[in-house]
Amino acid sequence: MSYENAESLGKAVCTACRADAPKVTADEASTLLREIPDWQISIIDGIEHLVREYKFGNYRDGLRFTVAVGELADEVDHHPSIITDWCKVTVHWWTHKIGGLHRNDFIMAYRTDGLFASIS
Amino acid sequence: MSYENAESLGKAVCTACRADAPKVTADEASTLLREIPDWQISIIDGIEHLVREYKFGNYRDGLRFTVAVGELADEVDHHPSIITDWCKVTVHWWTHKIGGLHRNDFIMAYRTDGLFASIS
Repeated sequence: MSYENAESLGKAVCTACRADAPKVTADEASTLLREIPDWQISIIDGIEHLVREYKFGNYRDGLRFTVAVGELADEVDHHPSIITDWCKVTVHWWTHKIGGLHRNDFIMAYRTDGLFASIS
Repeated sequence: MSYENAESLGKAVCTACRADAPKVTADEASTLLREIPDWQISIIDGIEHLVREYKFGNYRDGLRFTVAVGELADEVDHHPSIITDWCKVTVHWWTHKIGGLHRNDFIMAYRTDGLFASIS
């Protein structure tokens, strides 16, 4: 990962990920998280996930957001877990193939924030 | 709850639920589960949920199912947790106001199965 790009997740492209792709290091994660300050890293079943909850004024807006995130995910063939609740949607990004966080996950988290800004 | 209706979840209507509405008893739950055999009761944070995983041949079908369940939920103003993953959607029904399972949840589980049958 190039640190020149660490401040430009918005310009980065989510690329296909192989099983031998590197996980981000703790230092890299710390740097990248500055660009997506509303996300946190949670360890679930021993695997690091990027997690953020989004709140909505009504249920339909949350459902529309779920669809927007799902469509974006399918376009780039990188799929999160999207939990749709009453006026709240929680998104988890991680990379199944490497059992943890790849730079792609930070790129997708950044893009998910962009979708939220466009809907809410 | 009338046991005359126990075999007709499909004809039952999800009604508004009050905080003092009765939870189903263990015997009632056991009877109702016979009509939705793919569902199981899981205790999450001390609260009983009806839970079922649905599998799909592709991501878009799963996303369409999520939307269908969400729209049905909003129509009757009773909202589940819908977890959209890669080719898999997990639905949790429970009644927040009573901190457990109401007959409404079994009705909605039955109707969710109907949506799955119409999509898959």
